[in-house]
Amino acid sequence: MSNYLDSLNWRYATKKFDPSKSLSDEDLDYIKEAMRLSASSYGLQPYEVLIIQDPEIRAKLKPASWNQTQITDAAYVVVIANQSTFGDELVDDYIDNLVETRGVSKEDVQGYADFMKNTLGGFPEEIKAQWTAKQSYIVLANLLSAAAERRVDACPMEGFDPAQYNEILGLGERNLNAAVVATIGYRSDEDATQHYPKVRKSNDILFKTI
Amino acid sequence: MSNYLDSLNWRYATKKFDPSKSLSDEDLDYIKEAMRLSASSYGLQPYEVLIIQDPEIRAKLKPASWNQTQITDAAYVVVIANQSTFGDELVDDYIDNLVETRGVSKEDVQGYADFMKNTLGGFPEEIKAQWTAKQSYIVLANLLSAAAERRVDACPMEGFDPAQYNEILGLGERNLNAAVVATIGYRSDEDATQHYPKVRKSNDILFKTI
Repeated sequence: MSNYLDSLNWRYATKKFDPSKSLSDEDLDYIKEAMRLSASSYGLQPYEVLIIQDPEIRAKLKPASWNQTQITDAAYVVVIANQSTFGDELVDDYIDNLVETRGVSKEDVQGYADFMKNTLGGFPEEIKAQWTAKQSYIVLANLLSAAAERRVDACPMEGFDPAQYNEILGLGERNLNAAVVATIGYRSDEDATQHYPKVRKSNDILFKTI
Repeated sequence: MSNYLDSLNWRYATKKFDPSKSLSDEDLDYIKEAMRLSASSYGLQPYEVLIIQDPEIRAKLKPASWNQTQITDAAYVVVIANQSTFGDELVDDYIDNLVETRGVSKEDVQGYADFMKNTLGGFPEEIKAQWTAKQSYIVLANLLSAAAERRVDACPMEGFDPAQYNEILGLGERNLNAAVVATIGYRSDEDATQHYPKVRKSNDILFKTI
């Protein structure tokens, strides 16, 4: 069996972190690069990722997270914040990056830019937010995969109040919204859940082959 | 540099597949296992994954996918279908699996089951569908990661009409909804996009460290 499945089998949603342990910068950079390389619709990456170590801010986030201890015990809290709305600048910024990265002229990609603007501009506001939130979950998955490969523990978390997070982190005023959270660090020896067998649907229930 | 980042750098959204090439069963099983091991909220896996090879069905899906050739040229079309609604049976099925997998008694986990039912039962219908759709994107990301590790090409696709997919695949009547699609197979030599440098936000734009 190869590396990626080994990593997926190794990982679990860490309930209790060891507060005395932190990540190496190398491991953190590795996980960040996996998030940065995440696929997204049209490659637009309509989100920002907050990497939070500051203890005071984490103390504020904890009660907004059902007082879960991972928020203060893990090495970092990672908040993936989707753009709650956007205009043409989302496409313009991408096109600027594309022109620079690929060395093409703006004229060459004008038609593609217009196509994206027309498509995305037609989304109702609530659909924009749902669409960017879904892209954020790809970032979460890549974080979990990269952390597991480096044998860094992680806990994906939806159990928090986005409105409070947005307030504490100043996200709302920047049209950002806390979509999903992951804490990363190292498991505590006392975390009994690390020994639990994984519960997953069987192939015949999960898959339908046609 | 280690394996996972190499894979992420290797992959790209394949626009043109070679219709003469298919996956080995071993590679397909590997990708399926990565999807099956995907993290999900409470571990509930509120989705079904359709693996479609049938040429007639794919011919029907193509016009529902803006006539993109990946639908008929790739080795498989994978449709990740989220549960558009659910009741207590979502938790009951999970608990039955948990009891069997971990050898605990139903009584031991009754409180946890009730907690999940109360939380999820409180979701308005449209939130239920959004929540299950987001979980589906973790499955998509794991598919992309596993395929890339095996050097199998893939194209994540949102450019399709979910209503038509639901009709063609009989999903609607089972409270399922085509959330996102991926085609998997092998790139055509003629796919010029395979040579394009990846366009991604820089670290200083994507990340905020606090």
